[in-house]
Amino acid sequence: MRALVFDGQLKLATDYPMPVPRPQEALLRVTLAGICNTDLEITRGYMGFRGVLGHEFVGVVEAAPDVSWIGRRVVGEINCYCGSCPTCLAGNLTHCPHRNTLGIDARDGALADYCVLPMRNLHAVPDAVPDEQAVFTEPLAAALEIVEQVHVRPTQRVVVLGDGKLGLLVAQVLRLTACDLTAVGRHVDKLACLDRMGIATRLDADVQGMQADVVVDCTGQPDGFALARSLTRPRGTLVLKSTFQGQNSVNLTSMVVDEISVVGSRCGPFAPALRLLREELVDVEPLVAATYPLDQALAAFAHALTKGTLKVLLRP
Amino acid sequence: MRALVFDGQLKLATDYPMPVPRPQEALLRVTLAGICNTDLEITRGYMGFRGVLGHEFVGVVEAAPDVSWIGRRVVGEINCYCGSCPTCLAGNLTHCPHRNTLGIDARDGALADYCVLPMRNLHAVPDAVPDEQAVFTEPLAAALEIVEQVHVRPTQRVVVLGDGKLGLLVAQVLRLTACDLTAVGRHVDKLACLDRMGIATRLDADVQGMQADVVVDCTGQPDGFALARSLTRPRGTLVLKSTFQGQNSVNLTSMVVDEISVVGSRCGPFAPALRLLREELVDVEPLVAATYPLDQALAAFAHALTKGTLKVLLRP
Repeated sequence: MRALVFDGQLKLATDYPMPVPRPQEALLRVTLAGICNTDLEITRGYMGFRGVLGHEFVGVVEAAPDVSWIGRRVVGEINCYCGSCPTCLAGNLTHCPHRNTLGIDARDGALADYCVLPMRNLHAVPDAVPDEQAVFTEPLAAALEIVEQVHVRPTQRVVVLGDGKLGLLVAQVLRLTACDLTAVGRHVDKLACLDRMGIATRLDADVQGMQADVVVDCTGQPDGFALARSLTRPRGTLVLKSTFQGQNSVNLTSMVVDEISVVGSRCGPFAPALRLLREELVDVEPLVAATYPLDQALAAFAHALTKGTLKVLLRP
Repeated sequence: MRALVFDGQLKLATDYPMPVPRPQEALLRVTLAGICNTDLEITRGYMGFRGVLGHEFVGVVEAAPDVSWIGRRVVGEINCYCGSCPTCLAGNLTHCPHRNTLGIDARDGALADYCVLPMRNLHAVPDAVPDEQAVFTEPLAAALEIVEQVHVRPTQRVVVLGDGKLGLLVAQVLRLTACDLTAVGRHVDKLACLDRMGIATRLDADVQGMQADVVVDCTGQPDGFALARSLTRPRGTLVLKSTFQGQNSVNLTSMVVDEISVVGSRCGPFAPALRLLREELVDVEPLVAATYPLDQALAAFAHALTKGTLKVLLRP
């Protein structure tokens, strides 16, 4: 099959071996997949991953132990957990120490003709949600993880930092809390889709003196933390969504003095993400920069690497 | 009056001007005061403070706008807030941007014959609580701030890192939650008082592989953070109590991947601290290393600076 492979270099394989489902796993034919910043980071060495990239996808079940699933259109949670260790039994499935992760850690991903996932990771996509929206389920779930972890109140001032793909989804999710929201970015054109939804936006050069109860760092940049920290009021909460290579220099004492809470936030719940898509409470259409056929995966990846590009999709 | 003054150098003044209460403030005659790590840090440049040191004390009201307070034995909250700004009106009095802080920031402290505080900062000390216990109200309140901020459940594994003065108080407070508690330190002799209370203790060389739901860093050392982080399970909470000069190098991405919450924690509530002392639910007596007369304040400070010393008290 065709697959976008990273083995130290990025390659489009045309004869990559078909994945073989293990017991309780399904074989999925990918119909649409997205390129995520994490994919870009992996090609810079993040996670030390080798194999087929990609963890944002929608597909059709080709083979499954429960035949009633065959032919269904699905999205899939990317963390494959053991289900029996203390971490899993405490409900922290996405933190299973024995997990592998689609296209990120020890499991081939979805930027390919086919991929494989455990049945229990699959979610049927409602008919009302086309592939072009369902492909955003994974990053939308990651945005929802914020409100799964932190109680964002309708009366709070909230700032979302970063106008990339994730920042634009996070802003749309937080808007639904009715909070006093400002999205801060560096690109008037990218913020425009939030402006059209009535979300207040600002360029990051214009945030001096702002103080928010909750600040979400979606910049994906090491220097995002310092700006996010400066915007967080005493006793406020700073949510971290950015992952990148390397360490940050942090003034911990100022976090003690101001009693700041910092909350790391990663993967989120799929079922609520599908509900938001089905009920059209978020609009992912403005996030699509381009859609390429899988045969042009290398050109698509180069496009995604271009600074300021939103979501690049690949259609096998 | 006599006062332990830091003006770039530490001096015992014998003719320091008596403090003059402003409207709604009380003049307090100090009867016992403690030396805190923050005092030691101030003499290393922390906060850039100049003036009379000291913020842990018990005293007697000598003059007050409400004469019914005169002669009463009191302790006092150290943050003097405006009471009218948005931060105060949101209930975050200890974070008032206009605050000054006894012996720490823009207000002379309590390592002296007299000090001054707003009436609203005072708490009467119950008769059952002697000065030798009441002098621990401020650090005990700081320990209670942890359970004011974080819901510590009876079923959780909790680690307190650091067997200094604050660590020993924090361990005693967290023990009352009935959690599965381990106190970790570097000194068998200091941990012994916790052993005697039935609290599990370990040397920090013996914590490999431990994972806790809540970890409290009371080490007061920059390298405490990395150890505390390594002991915090995925989705766990790391409470920061340490203040020191300088920056830390932190891997923020690992906090995102493991969805760690970090909670900065500073000053806490006095009334609950007095309740714990009155009801003898904490034992502060083993924390006292020595008591000096105020005339020997410089010797007392030198003693407090000696590595491994617990609480040094000063009696005017």
